[in-house]
Amino acid sequence: ADAFEFSDHSHRRRNPLTNSWVLCSPHRAKRPWLGQQEKTSEGDKPAYLPDCYLCPRNPRVTGSANPDYTSTYVFPNDFPAFHKQQPAYTPEALHAHASSSTTSSGAGDATNGRLDSIMTDLFQVEGVRGESRVVCFSPNHSETLAEMSTDAIVHVVRTWIDQCKELATQPHVANVQIFENKGAAMGCSNPHPHCQIWATDDIPQEPAAELSSFAAYKTKRGTCLMCDYAALERTLTQRLVCENDSFICVVPFWAVWPFETMIVAKQHTSAMAKLSDKQVHDLADILRRITCRYDNLFTTSFPYSMGIHQAPIGPAAAGNPDAHAEDSDLMHLHLHFYPPLLRSATVRKFLVGFEMLGEAQRDLTAEQAAERLRACSETHYSKQ
Amino acid sequence: ADAFEFSDHSHRRRNPLTNSWVLCSPHRAKRPWLGQQEKTSEGDKPAYLPDCYLCPRNPRVTGSANPDYTSTYVFPNDFPAFHKQQPAYTPEALHAHASSSTTSSGAGDATNGRLDSIMTDLFQVEGVRGESRVVCFSPNHSETLAEMSTDAIVHVVRTWIDQCKELATQPHVANVQIFENKGAAMGCSNPHPHCQIWATDDIPQEPAAELSSFAAYKTKRGTCLMCDYAALERTLTQRLVCENDSFICVVPFWAVWPFETMIVAKQHTSAMAKLSDKQVHDLADILRRITCRYDNLFTTSFPYSMGIHQAPIGPAAAGNPDAHAEDSDLMHLHLHFYPPLLRSATVRKFLVGFEMLGEAQRDLTAEQAAERLRACSETHYSKQ
Ligand SMILES: O=P(O)(O)O[C@H]1O[C@H](CO)[C@@H](O)[C@H](O)[C@H]1O
Ligand SMILES: O=P(O)(O)O[C@H]1O[C@H](CO)[C@@H](O)[C@H](O)[C@H]1O
Repeated sequence: ADAFEFSDHSHRRRNPLTNSWVLCSPHRAKRPWLGQQEKTSEGDKPAYLPDCYLCPRNPRVTGSANPDYTSTYVFPNDFPAFHKQQPAYTPEALHAHASSSTTSSGAGDATNGRLDSIMTDLFQVEGVRGESRVVCFSPNHSETLAEMSTDAIVHVVRTWIDQCKELATQPHVANVQIFENKGAAMGCSNPHPHCQIWATDDIPQEPAAELSSFAAYKTKRGTCLMCDYAALERTLTQRLVCENDSFICVVPFWAVWPFETMIVAKQHTSAMAKLSDKQVHDLADILRRITCRYDNLFTTSFPYSMGIHQAPIGPAAAGNPDAHAEDSDLMHLHLHFYPPLLRSATVRKFLVGFEMLGEAQRDLTAEQAAERLRACSETHYSKQ
Repeated sequence: ADAFEFSDHSHRRRNPLTNSWVLCSPHRAKRPWLGQQEKTSEGDKPAYLPDCYLCPRNPRVTGSANPDYTSTYVFPNDFPAFHKQQPAYTPEALHAHASSSTTSSGAGDATNGRLDSIMTDLFQVEGVRGESRVVCFSPNHSETLAEMSTDAIVHVVRTWIDQCKELATQPHVANVQIFENKGAAMGCSNPHPHCQIWATDDIPQEPAAELSSFAAYKTKRGTCLMCDYAALERTLTQRLVCENDSFICVVPFWAVWPFETMIVAKQHTSAMAKLSDKQVHDLADILRRITCRYDNLFTTSFPYSMGIHQAPIGPAAAGNPDAHAEDSDLMHLHLHFYPPLLRSATVRKFLVGFEMLGEAQRDLTAEQAAERLRACSETHYSKQ
């Protein structure tokens, strides 16, 4: 009765990839809920919608029409977050920006003296060039990864690899971020199954933080953080959901989202372009199996954001300290799934309030979540 | 045409409080939206609801009934994220937890040798004690801060201060986090206007990160980061929304949420308990004015998470390096507002996909957001 129990007592766990904390409050999931109910999208599952700008043959906002594609389809995002070319950012741009405002308000010249030096410390800016592409998984408007065949998903994985190889030759690329927002609850602006590829000339914060943790760990222990972590989880088994020859799927010890998982390569592999044919097949296999388990958990098309973390790619990585170019093998390829649902198809976890002002907080332990996911079938409920 | 323009070109800005980045993509807010539409809660605004567990006289889940309160009302959260007392966490608890899993799976004793030392590096855990309270702002089920009088909000601020003073005497307290989740979009589980107070025996990640940035800045420049920042924004004026004698309200240079703001004390003040009567009045005044502007922006009850960052409080802070006990005046009191709406009462910003896997991203600049908020009236639309 006097011993600390992970499943009974509040504690926080540290995420060694990003050096952040998550507060675990076991048993808090039982509180009453008068809050938002998510919509579920069951029922109608049309294979084609005339007004979907991702379906084959339909017009896009640019005026051109999609081809009559039959498997995956890649095109440039019509509303990209960045462009391949733009004027270089210089500190003068910040001063011009600041003086334009002080001149118009008549508050004096802020670009001199003490305020100027404060501004240099507090207003740190970098220009960002890049490009943004969309990858439709299939012509079918309603077929998600969870319901696709492994062979069809192999085709998606090969498309990702081809994209990474091609982007690696572009001057404005240092990092290739592949991600999927699935479901209205995760801000997906169109339900047609698709992912995005955002390639930038910088290393975004999350992969930069991971690379720096990997470097510190390697300096300290001489080994790869993720290789060691995967070995540990395979021995402990408590948080394992499923595995195949090449990958494990695990609820991370430091998971934030209720049913967050991570797919980790068993053998050290730094990037998508380095996957063997066998690994490509096994990645498709484990993607199908975990997305299927997710759908079966609450018998609903399970929303999530998912994405791939891999080594920096492309010429713009050279000379960027965040890229750790001195060790191109530093990154260990892995995928994160961040799904919001907590208790049912309609009740999600909100990371708000304390989570935004204090730190992330979860209402069940990672071990409890893994147990629930292990109990799910790998045959989709729609086919049972 | 060749110069870098903040309002035209993609860039990222660094948040010097938490050392994180936000990618700014001006003009991206125009993309089509087939995604989630938020519900608006206009129409019925009952002052009392028989089945609300926060309204006066109604029963709570514990069985006891709320008193017939007439202004603010404080009670312990019936589903707290932590407790005042629990067994202390020790590394043995981690090993017991791990061996229980390996024993049951027959995978061998992971608590020895190399895996044991990996576990010590990768599984960092701290026990967390604390308590969680709820503060109803008023007996009226539908009266939000935006519609309350300044005098009524003064009463809320005084309640916060009283709570901080009382919690400062509790052995299990090192930090007092006051926050409000408003609106279904921000995970508010009951629309009756209320906030929460989560007091913990640790310093949560966000205030810990801020304190460490304040300390580094003070070491480098000898001054307070937030005093300098406030002076800079008052000179530049571009991002100021409103101000009074004691506080400014500003869209931070590094804002993540579309209409994120920060309320900052003009004069260095470290904690709620140190506010003068004049500052208490002025905090209530600026809270009323910014929440009213928010409601007027899209003519809707504007959802947000809001919270107060102040110096560590209570005996448990002693000896915690995150608390920076050597300089109890290090923190500069400020409030963050994190509101999700982007384009209208029904279209919000989702921080998903690239934001979770890469880094935060926004679709208009902080300066554009400030201009929009400055144009809003400080008389609530329901009273115009
Ligand atoms: O405590 P409540 O209002 O039931 O819950 C809300 O606020 C909490 C603290 O920010 C969050 O952890 C929950 O996800 C949110 O729904
Ligand atoms: O690009 P989309 O699908 O229109 O938009 C979605 O994904 C983006 C990248 O994660 C986010 O910035 C948006 O908030 C989200 O709604």
